[in-house]
Amino acid sequence: MPMLTSLSGFPEWLPEDQLIAETFVEQIKEKFRQFGFTPLRTRAVEPLQTLLSKGETSKEIYVLRRLQAEEGESDLDLGLHFDLTVPFARYVNEHKDRLVFPLRRYQVQEAWRGERPGLGRYREFLQADFDIIGEGHLPIQADVEIVQMCVDILSALPLPNVQLRVNNRKILEGIYQALGIVDSGEILRVVDKVDKIGERGVFDYLTQNTGLAAEAAKMCLRAARIKADSAAGLHEAFRNLGLANAAISAGLDELGAILDMVRREDKGSLVADVSIARGLDYYTGTVFEARFADLPRYPSILGGGRYDNLASGGSTNRMPGVGGSIGISRILGVMLNENALKANRPTSTVVLVGLISGELYQNSAEIAQILRGRNIACEIYMAPDKYGKQIRYAARKGIPYIWFPSEQGGSLGEVKDLSSGVQVPADASQWQPADILGIEISLDRNAWQEIIQKPMYSGGKQEKDRNINNTFT
Amino acid sequence: MPMLTSLSGFPEWLPEDQLIAETFVEQIKEKFRQFGFTPLRTRAVEPLQTLLSKGETSKEIYVLRRLQAEEGESDLDLGLHFDLTVPFARYVNEHKDRLVFPLRRYQVQEAWRGERPGLGRYREFLQADFDIIGEGHLPIQADVEIVQMCVDILSALPLPNVQLRVNNRKILEGIYQALGIVDSGEILRVVDKVDKIGERGVFDYLTQNTGLAAEAAKMCLRAARIKADSAAGLHEAFRNLGLANAAISAGLDELGAILDMVRREDKGSLVADVSIARGLDYYTGTVFEARFADLPRYPSILGGGRYDNLASGGSTNRMPGVGGSIGISRILGVMLNENALKANRPTSTVVLVGLISGELYQNSAEIAQILRGRNIACEIYMAPDKYGKQIRYAARKGIPYIWFPSEQGGSLGEVKDLSSGVQVPADASQWQPADILGIEISLDRNAWQEIIQKPMYSGGKQEKDRNINNTFT
Repeated sequence: MPMLTSLSGFPEWLPEDQLIAETFVEQIKEKFRQFGFTPLRTRAVEPLQTLLSKGETSKEIYVLRRLQAEEGESDLDLGLHFDLTVPFARYVNEHKDRLVFPLRRYQVQEAWRGERPGLGRYREFLQADFDIIGEGHLPIQADVEIVQMCVDILSALPLPNVQLRVNNRKILEGIYQALGIVDSGEILRVVDKVDKIGERGVFDYLTQNTGLAAEAAKMCLRAARIKADSAAGLHEAFRNLGLANAAISAGLDELGAILDMVRREDKGSLVADVSIARGLDYYTGTVFEARFADLPRYPSILGGGRYDNLASGGSTNRMPGVGGSIGISRILGVMLNENALKANRPTSTVVLVGLISGELYQNSAEIAQILRGRNIACEIYMAPDKYGKQIRYAARKGIPYIWFPSEQGGSLGEVKDLSSGVQVPADASQWQPADILGIEISLDRNAWQEIIQKPMYSGGKQEKDRNINNTFT
Repeated sequence: MPMLTSLSGFPEWLPEDQLIAETFVEQIKEKFRQFGFTPLRTRAVEPLQTLLSKGETSKEIYVLRRLQAEEGESDLDLGLHFDLTVPFARYVNEHKDRLVFPLRRYQVQEAWRGERPGLGRYREFLQADFDIIGEGHLPIQADVEIVQMCVDILSALPLPNVQLRVNNRKILEGIYQALGIVDSGEILRVVDKVDKIGERGVFDYLTQNTGLAAEAAKMCLRAARIKADSAAGLHEAFRNLGLANAAISAGLDELGAILDMVRREDKGSLVADVSIARGLDYYTGTVFEARFADLPRYPSILGGGRYDNLASGGSTNRMPGVGGSIGISRILGVMLNENALKANRPTSTVVLVGLISGELYQNSAEIAQILRGRNIACEIYMAPDKYGKQIRYAARKGIPYIWFPSEQGGSLGEVKDLSSGVQVPADASQWQPADILGIEISLDRNAWQEIIQKPMYSGGKQEKDRNINNTFT
């Protein structure tokens, strides 16, 4: 069903969609736990100076004010967090003496940005973050574990084709060093936009706005075109490129380790892609992101990387980490909005316990108690209506069974399967539904095919896009 | 472990406590689902006029402002919700054409109030709300189901003695009518405070501030003293009181139905208590609340009731409902803070997969993959340290087993049980831990006994309290 947005940028869902959303999130959490990650929760609010400490002034932070604050009252300035990274860094720095490192944590919470809402961009959005953070030194194996978990999560979820692309900042830094570029920050951010503005756009910007020589700009673009799915392929591509130095070599070793050590069902689900930079300043090694393969213009649905000093809080102890974030609102914002995610039924309730008459409510309550004790979710029909009306109510709610209690009370009665129409005598203390008790969600491939065709998701400017994406050097 | 409150009123927990908190919440959600309730989530933010529509101006609302809002920019005024009732009423009113009634929903989310933090009171707090909402008419059986669910949740959770006290607003209205009291609102709010200010305090306030005659005030207090655990007992108490009219009679019928129809293990866990009023204006029938029986001064940990028009949004269709809210932060604020909740282990991770050497990381990764595929949560040790150091790390994290992979790779290896010290050969594709895979939490009764003694929770003014609680008429 479509997302409900009576307040622009603040999505909500109808009950049947919310049930799918919660099941989706639960599947992600289960994978986090399998990988030994522990749940953390930070407050929604941080002092403004914490939010601004990474220089993230461009984020549209929501600042809080108490409605009944007195004139001139100098409340500590508080704002809603705009991601889960800054609060996690603050938490680790604050409590590091009481934490055991390396710490593996996951955190599934909302974040808020007062930005103009757009495709896949909301003012309130749900993120699922995961990080491994160490003290002093954190081996490249941590990056392998993190990327492995991303691959496993993406393949376990009911998603269409998603490609996880991974790179290493050291390679990019090495390339810029080799080309004699001093201020690599801006170049890095521009090259990262090659998917968005095309190679021509990047070339023009680099040569006109950063003063890069045409040959160097072309070299940046040639490097950004490198893709590989093994360490051997990656090294060969760089031999062909003809750029080499210590930074490139260190980055290739790390990236190669990820390519060779991460196990995947389908080789194509993880590739090294030297165009990936991730805009954020704090990444120092591995960087990765995932997008819907069929929607190249849709923003990334997962991203992250290695950082060396995020949580050190100015102390001399380095606290390196590696982690990422799954954009749950962004994924559901297209998949759920366009009915590409289906559940086995629209409610987790398995049985409607019918009501014989108002006076015999206790008979229904007894059946419900027995079923609930066996973890079979049920609802009691509460008005003494005709059975036909009770059956129609169950059907409208998508409850698969209706139970008719006996007038004598006890665990016996009759149960009707609403899909087959078959009604049989049954004992609530033993009866098993044919349906599974839980909710299972799956991808509707037909609905997804329709999404791919929609101009609002595919861009509707395919011709133009194809041109700017063409390589030109 | 103690609650972390580096920002006053915004609690956070260490990882081992957060794990207990999440397990606690998951147990509540499971009960909600067994009772046929569906999960809903509303945005954290509402237009200020929605937040103020119930006249709740006394709540300290946090208003939002974009940090980069331009001078004179007239952003729609938004505030963080201060409970989950107002947003739910807004949601139901907004989407009622697309919802199936009666709707059973639960909603577990944070709410925010800019109040001065105090015992059990926070600026950010987690609530678990549950409601059944109907169209036109909602039978008393809905109240029975709601109270039944409260009784079942309170007895399923690892809590110390908790008494659920239930009353009916119609009884109170009837009493005030019988006593010729016109403006009953203030009287109701004062009598509700009898636990806090004592009978003498209520009597003085009623006679001095509301102008009630002494005899009428005494009658209010005599009524408020009525307690019963069956319909018969309740009716008898009112015959003895000597007040009767249609409103009292209607209220007694409803309250009696709850007492007689709600099944409970221990009769004492649910009692009718005519002193319970619940301050909120919108309740019209059943009201209930629960407190820690051993901490009479600690604020209520669960409360709710029947309302007739909360979600009608001014339309002519009545949308009666009944529901309540569990104060999760309030419960954990004492129980977790004082170590009264224990888990079977401090992490959900079952196995630490040891590392033979940096080069043989793949052997560890293979074991981890096999165990994770069997839903056995595990973490890989990432630095090539001596086994002794790896074992100490597992012990510090509370991971119960360490797996030593074979140098040949494959699913074979040895597994050491850290609690017994026994190490045996094992096959990762078949091995089963003796520990359960999940987290189970329980009440530590010794820790609870210590809490009861602490002045900060018990009030420390027991003598004085005993005096003001004495009946005096």
